[in-house]
Amino acid sequence: MAKKVKYVYFFGGKKADGKAEMKSLLGGKGANLAEMVNIGLPVPAGYTITTEVCTYYYANKRSYPKELKAQVLDALKKVENAMGAKFGDPKNPLLVSIRSGARASMPGMMDTILNLGLNDTTVKGVIEKTNGNTRFAYDSYRRFVQMYGDVVLGLKPVDKHEIDPFEAIIEAKKEARGIHFDTELTAEDLMELVAEFKAAIKEKTGHDFPEDPHTQLWGAIGAVFGSWMNDRAKVYRKLNGIPESWGTAVNVQSMVFGNMGEDSGTGVAFTRDPATGENIFYGEYLFNAQGEDVVAGTRTPHPIAALKDDNPVIYKQLDNIRKILEKHYKDMMDIEFTIQQGKLWMLQCRVGKRTGFAAVKMAVDMVKEKLIGKEEAIMRIEPNQLNQLLRPVFDANEKKKAIEEGKLLAKGLNAGPGAASGRVALSAQDAEEMAAKGEKVILVRIETSPEDIKGMNASEGILTAKGGMTSHAALVARQMGKVCVAGCGALKINYAERSIRVDKLPDVVVKEGDFISIDGSTGEVIVGAINTKPSEVIQVLINKTLDPKDSPVFQTYDSLMKWADSYRKLGIRTNADQPDQASNAIAFGAQGIGLCRTEHMFFEGDRILHVRKMILSDSVEGRKEALAELLPFQREDFRGIFKAMKGYPVTVRTLDPPLHEFLPQKESDIEVLAQELNIPVAKVHERIHSLHEFNPMLGFRGCRLGVVYPEITEMQARAIFEAAAEVMAEGYKVKPEIMIPLVGDVSELKLQEDIVRRVAAEVMAEKKVKIQYLVGTMIELPRAALVADQIATRAEFFSFGTNDLTQTTFGLSRDDSGKFLPLYVEQELLPNDPFEALDQNGVGQLLEMGTQRGRKTRPDLKVGICGEHGGEPSSVEFCHRTGLNYVSCSPFRVPIARLAAARAVVRELKPGAKKTKPVKKAVKTTKKKK
Amino acid sequence: MAKKVKYVYFFGGKKADGKAEMKSLLGGKGANLAEMVNIGLPVPAGYTITTEVCTYYYANKRSYPKELKAQVLDALKKVENAMGAKFGDPKNPLLVSIRSGARASMPGMMDTILNLGLNDTTVKGVIEKTNGNTRFAYDSYRRFVQMYGDVVLGLKPVDKHEIDPFEAIIEAKKEARGIHFDTELTAEDLMELVAEFKAAIKEKTGHDFPEDPHTQLWGAIGAVFGSWMNDRAKVYRKLNGIPESWGTAVNVQSMVFGNMGEDSGTGVAFTRDPATGENIFYGEYLFNAQGEDVVAGTRTPHPIAALKDDNPVIYKQLDNIRKILEKHYKDMMDIEFTIQQGKLWMLQCRVGKRTGFAAVKMAVDMVKEKLIGKEEAIMRIEPNQLNQLLRPVFDANEKKKAIEEGKLLAKGLNAGPGAASGRVALSAQDAEEMAAKGEKVILVRIETSPEDIKGMNASEGILTAKGGMTSHAALVARQMGKVCVAGCGALKINYAERSIRVDKLPDVVVKEGDFISIDGSTGEVIVGAINTKPSEVIQVLINKTLDPKDSPVFQTYDSLMKWADSYRKLGIRTNADQPDQASNAIAFGAQGIGLCRTEHMFFEGDRILHVRKMILSDSVEGRKEALAELLPFQREDFRGIFKAMKGYPVTVRTLDPPLHEFLPQKESDIEVLAQELNIPVAKVHERIHSLHEFNPMLGFRGCRLGVVYPEITEMQARAIFEAAAEVMAEGYKVKPEIMIPLVGDVSELKLQEDIVRRVAAEVMAEKKVKIQYLVGTMIELPRAALVADQIATRAEFFSFGTNDLTQTTFGLSRDDSGKFLPLYVEQELLPNDPFEALDQNGVGQLLEMGTQRGRKTRPDLKVGICGEHGGEPSSVEFCHRTGLNYVSCSPFRVPIARLAAARAVVRELKPGAKKTKPVKKAVKTTKKKK
Repeated sequence: MAKKVKYVYFFGGKKADGKAEMKSLLGGKGANLAEMVNIGLPVPAGYTITTEVCTYYYANKRSYPKELKAQVLDALKKVENAMGAKFGDPKNPLLVSIRSGARASMPGMMDTILNLGLNDTTVKGVIEKTNGNTRFAYDSYRRFVQMYGDVVLGLKPVDKHEIDPFEAIIEAKKEARGIHFDTELTAEDLMELVAEFKAAIKEKTGHDFPEDPHTQLWGAIGAVFGSWMNDRAKVYRKLNGIPESWGTAVNVQSMVFGNMGEDSGTGVAFTRDPATGENIFYGEYLFNAQGEDVVAGTRTPHPIAALKDDNPVIYKQLDNIRKILEKHYKDMMDIEFTIQQGKLWMLQCRVGKRTGFAAVKMAVDMVKEKLIGKEEAIMRIEPNQLNQLLRPVFDANEKKKAIEEGKLLAKGLNAGPGAASGRVALSAQDAEEMAAKGEKVILVRIETSPEDIKGMNASEGILTAKGGMTSHAALVARQMGKVCVAGCGALKINYAERSIRVDKLPDVVVKEGDFISIDGSTGEVIVGAINTKPSEVIQVLINKTLDPKDSPVFQTYDSLMKWADSYRKLGIRTNADQPDQASNAIAFGAQGIGLCRTEHMFFEGDRILHVRKMILSDSVEGRKEALAELLPFQREDFRGIFKAMKGYPVTVRTLDPPLHEFLPQKESDIEVLAQELNIPVAKVHERIHSLHEFNPMLGFRGCRLGVVYPEITEMQARAIFEAAAEVMAEGYKVKPEIMIPLVGDVSELKLQEDIVRRVAAEVMAEKKVKIQYLVGTMIELPRAALVADQIATRAEFFSFGTNDLTQTTFGLSRDDSGKFLPLYVEQELLPNDPFEALDQNGVGQLLEMGTQRGRKTRPDLKVGICGEHGGEPSSVEFCHRTGLNYVSCSPFRVPIARLAAARAVVRELKPGAKKTKPVKKAVKTTKKKK
Repeated sequence: MAKKVKYVYFFGGKKADGKAEMKSLLGGKGANLAEMVNIGLPVPAGYTITTEVCTYYYANKRSYPKELKAQVLDALKKVENAMGAKFGDPKNPLLVSIRSGARASMPGMMDTILNLGLNDTTVKGVIEKTNGNTRFAYDSYRRFVQMYGDVVLGLKPVDKHEIDPFEAIIEAKKEARGIHFDTELTAEDLMELVAEFKAAIKEKTGHDFPEDPHTQLWGAIGAVFGSWMNDRAKVYRKLNGIPESWGTAVNVQSMVFGNMGEDSGTGVAFTRDPATGENIFYGEYLFNAQGEDVVAGTRTPHPIAALKDDNPVIYKQLDNIRKILEKHYKDMMDIEFTIQQGKLWMLQCRVGKRTGFAAVKMAVDMVKEKLIGKEEAIMRIEPNQLNQLLRPVFDANEKKKAIEEGKLLAKGLNAGPGAASGRVALSAQDAEEMAAKGEKVILVRIETSPEDIKGMNASEGILTAKGGMTSHAALVARQMGKVCVAGCGALKINYAERSIRVDKLPDVVVKEGDFISIDGSTGEVIVGAINTKPSEVIQVLINKTLDPKDSPVFQTYDSLMKWADSYRKLGIRTNADQPDQASNAIAFGAQGIGLCRTEHMFFEGDRILHVRKMILSDSVEGRKEALAELLPFQREDFRGIFKAMKGYPVTVRTLDPPLHEFLPQKESDIEVLAQELNIPVAKVHERIHSLHEFNPMLGFRGCRLGVVYPEITEMQARAIFEAAAEVMAEGYKVKPEIMIPLVGDVSELKLQEDIVRRVAAEVMAEKKVKIQYLVGTMIELPRAALVADQIATRAEFFSFGTNDLTQTTFGLSRDDSGKFLPLYVEQELLPNDPFEALDQNGVGQLLEMGTQRGRKTRPDLKVGICGEHGGEPSSVEFCHRTGLNYVSCSPFRVPIARLAAARAVVRELKPGAKKTKPVKKAVKTTKKKK
């Protein structure tokens, strides 16, 4: 016969079958209950039915393995022994709770049944054991029957607006008694309620309430396993990336009661402050209460510090347990405890959830306390948690109040974290004008386009009705460090009426100029103003309004970042188009610019007119003339960036977007343009028409522009090298890296490279200076990755443009994917939105292939990534494993990338971890190839 | 010292240094001159300067290897010996011609100099040698000076409209003499002309005409090498895919003269009829003439047969040479000969160009004559030449006349070969209505869309102003076997005025209803009607109006196809959506349908209304209701196709295009639709707006539709299986293969496959029948190829959709690429338009990867291709080498694919050829997987 499978793990007394490491099998709760027993803490005895039973249950039409029943009975016997009571015993009954317990915490998502084992017989035993506390016994009994009816027998209404049948009975009873609170119900009332509850169950289900405790037990176990698949749990799993396959364990545990009188009580606590990270005992408790009373908010609990006076013995025990737990788990723990008639019982312990602030502080503190090492500290902080240290925040109370007052207008995508409040501007121009008058502005658009850049820059935050996490608005906002809520589909933006409405709140009309507040960390859009403040880290690093010595928050941030830098191997660069962005990025620790988009500069001031003139020219000469007018502006832009970057390398991408993006769309703008350029309106129309594209993403853009109009590349190269020469003459170091976009074949790169190198040689001869520069390409088309070996014969560096590479590899337009991609993620067809986290399974293969093939041709090929993924932690780790030299991300994500890069290294230090591919040292300078 | 390189190859007398196999080094002409010498034919002696010298010349600033001079002098000596004359000798001068000779024929593209060696001294020797023929001598002399001045000294005007300075002098002379023809010029006139020519040279260049024959010689050699890079030659090379790196050889050959009197003459001939392929001696000749007189058309040459009477001795010699050549070369040869004073000289021989008709007939005949084997016959015919045997053709004389009369309106892309003539219809509806009245119609549109399908089907041909070789119009036209000229940008189509104009012919207005003729093999668009007729092969196979016994053309076609089938290993399927297309494809030899696009059926009759109703539904129920109305139509469609395919497998693709393609665009149509469906107009607008996409190619289409609206897949599956069951009940065999489009991840396929298999099981249970079917997917996204191993866990077959795969791999929209792709091909950035010939370097890697990875998971995976490339010969050969099971192409390309597939096999039979990857036998039936 096959080896007997152990499905049930006992815990209690001094020894448990399980331990903390067995979370996959026992769930988090079960494993920690076992662990607490093993480290000598007082835990009510019980047993855990493993997650394997859950898997079996769903694979076998909701049935159990045949061995289960015997193992449950066996464990129950041990529990009875440990607690000195007997399940179903009329004199000394053992009561149990049945709770779910998955590998990852899913608070409140699944079902729980308390006080199980009570029936008309055992309730008498409880009265006896509690020295005649009839009210307690029947209160426990009626709670059990109600819970069992709701959860196991399915009487809880699905619709939240319907009233629970048992609550209805209680309300009727209170009315009959002329009382207002449950606590005013007498023992007799409660006894009657039990009978009435049972009658209701009989009426609604056609069956009697089960009196047999074993029947009760199996019913409850089935209900808890069944709740793994309820809608709430499914949604929660999807939101939190918990696989359905994990299943839940079921914990059956002896009941202890905090409501047995004033020598009883219950509480929840954290071993440190989960909001600030401070090393204080943090929590609350209530005497003569059950756990739900603490959480429900019907009574106001006391802070845990008060226990020191109220019950110094218990407090000392608890504080001792706190120390044991931190020493044992080396982390901040979240605990639940109950005091039953003066005896302390531990009901739960798990690693405590914490804010980003707290995560950083605890990790840094624990290193100082020698509880953990730096590597562990690095692994303790999810990189995205750093956002909290960087972003402006709303005053928490003000926001809560506003939401309670019904001012939550809608919820969109949390596309650019932070909080912003300001007056609504419905056009970029309005935003600029309002900002010029000193107003704080929120730019609200159906969607944004490159023409809106200046208005976006002038705004505190950007709110759009359309577009996803990587829409234009989201991308630019993150790069600018602006708060952004994108794709808020509920908003009905009426440009003509200058107003915003939502269906949900028919009476609310937000007019242009009204105040609105957006939370880019949650996606909330709130009517009215809410106060915000910049984070301390920003005050120190960017605003320079705070001395680092005066900011403990900054100091912990800074310690963590220094540790991260001591581990990480990946370089971190930034995507920045303007000197101020570049300076911010350096303050955040960037070591270069990985993507400087030259076209953003085209919209500044009068430049757009020259750009349009160039586009509307029929001849090379006309284009060259317009480009010559643009040259000084571009040169000035590059001067600013080169100076700001202080000798760090600057990767400049030549013109990329389709030309139609630069032409006006509104008829009035078209007429103005025709007048300004002194050409017929029809000609502007004709050009707009001829530049129209069915699929602009796959159209006339990237290096295709430079191939057809080499004079554009030539002008841009000249601007770069002239700026470099001038800035070098002023004593700055400059390392330009010219990047040719959208290359699909080495022949395109060759053509563009030849222009760049020729212009470089010309400028160097003219200015009598030697400029160290590189010429490379973006790898953003699948074909480029496939023929990377050929492309590397010409490219001195690769930079993966994973935004476009994701679009082309998936055949997926990020602007159009809103119709189905959310459903894909929801239905788990894809593990993530591939525009947020790099698709390692597919697109990742092209990164690996491109890197390997490129380095095969040119072993010292410098390889980076400059898509949005460069600031996404899982993608950064992938880039490290793939052997990239650097990642480049928006300035405000630089700290996140630094931490993620360090975590990738630390992860590999673990025994048995997959090692990264060796990274060759990248070329430092360039020499003209033959 | 290094081994001496041989740069100069002598030929003449009985022995030549070179031979026919040395074409790369000696060029075609030089190699064949050497070969003719070697097989004993009379060839004027000469020598060939190799192509290596050309390469050296361009790599070294137009200079020669230092060894060249001595080798040339040495070869010249041998020529003098062979011909018994001496270069520059005043008494017995040797005159030579200097001609280019590249590896591939480039007729007329490079320069030639004749009669070189003449000067004021040697001309006397010529007079002496010709017994005082002063006129001949000076005529030769003036021709040489003129040619030398034009070509070597660069006096020929670049602008065709300018007059040649030498021609101007001749005209003046004739005017002065009062004569009309050159032949009327006397010896004295010619002598004066020589002097006047030289004076003009002195005046225009500042230098004297070189009298020294060696100076003349090196000047001419340099001019011929230089002409390799003239604009004409560059364009020709690009058009014909001849690499620049090949270079040209230069042939210096003793002059022989056909204009030395009535015992002299010259001619050109083919060893068989190059137009029909008939085995007759075909050519023409003139007595007392130079080669150029035959070609120039100033005198009417005699057919070669006339020589039999005019000069039986020479005829017999020539006919004998014809036989020797065919026996030696085993091919039809194109020859040039000259008779000098009764002696026959061979000046040139090369494999003759021929029509498709002739190619097939000659190849088949030569097999029968045992000149060549079947394999050689298969390799002799470029698959695309078969088009000539399939397509309707214009009456050649009528077309020529029309063009001469200035009726050529414009030229577009030859997108759908064949000839069509009919009345202009400017909308699909007009086309249908006119066709219903029995008119032949040419549908002329700016571009076509799926809504135009019925109108296209009703038309003889389709002409569009926009779109490339793989635009909608081109794709559908080829599939339908319609003539198509696409992307004819010169056309100004005015829908409002119902007219077509071109700038070039301002007086011409083609109105709707006027006759127009389009040649889809050349791209010509001609005003007025030209008679056409279907090809004999079509008359036999499709129209069944001709008995095969009465068509020798058909018989040769049929022989060739049978031989091809005996070699090829690739299966050939067709892309067909309608029973008539399917039947045609079978007649052409298709062995199944590789792509049946279900959406084309959606536009038939009233169906579009149901489709629109479905799209406009807000609820699953509404959609299901509309789909239920569509079901009977789809089922009927599939019944027709299954019956037509007679048991061959039919691959049905589920709905693919974005839904907005099914909605009307015109306001009036929108209003009609709203009325028909009894919904507000605004709702239709709203839906159209919500379905709008920035990049529809990358949008909500393919299996994404079926994922979001599973009810569509369900309906289509039901229609397929119900049709199969019904048709099986009527005694037909059916093999449906359901193909899920645009899969990027196995999860999508799984979802769709589950629906298909469930519906299949339901229908089989309902109808009590067992249907053999497969479920597979298109691989048309790079990601699908990358994760093919995962996808193959579910897919029973792959079909590469190389149209979309090319678009996504290159990031290139075929609808938008017109702005730059032609330039890319012209500038040789890409060797071909990747939408015409599969990009083997890039996209091809994904085919290999997808096939290998798929077969790793499922060794018997059936793999095909259903993109347009499936009918393009080089792509078909690639598919063979990659180990695909089949290619699928439009019905009219099936014969081409059959031949190409055979050629791929034959090519591998050659010693040292790369062998194909082994093809596993594909699965025949399917079993439900666990």
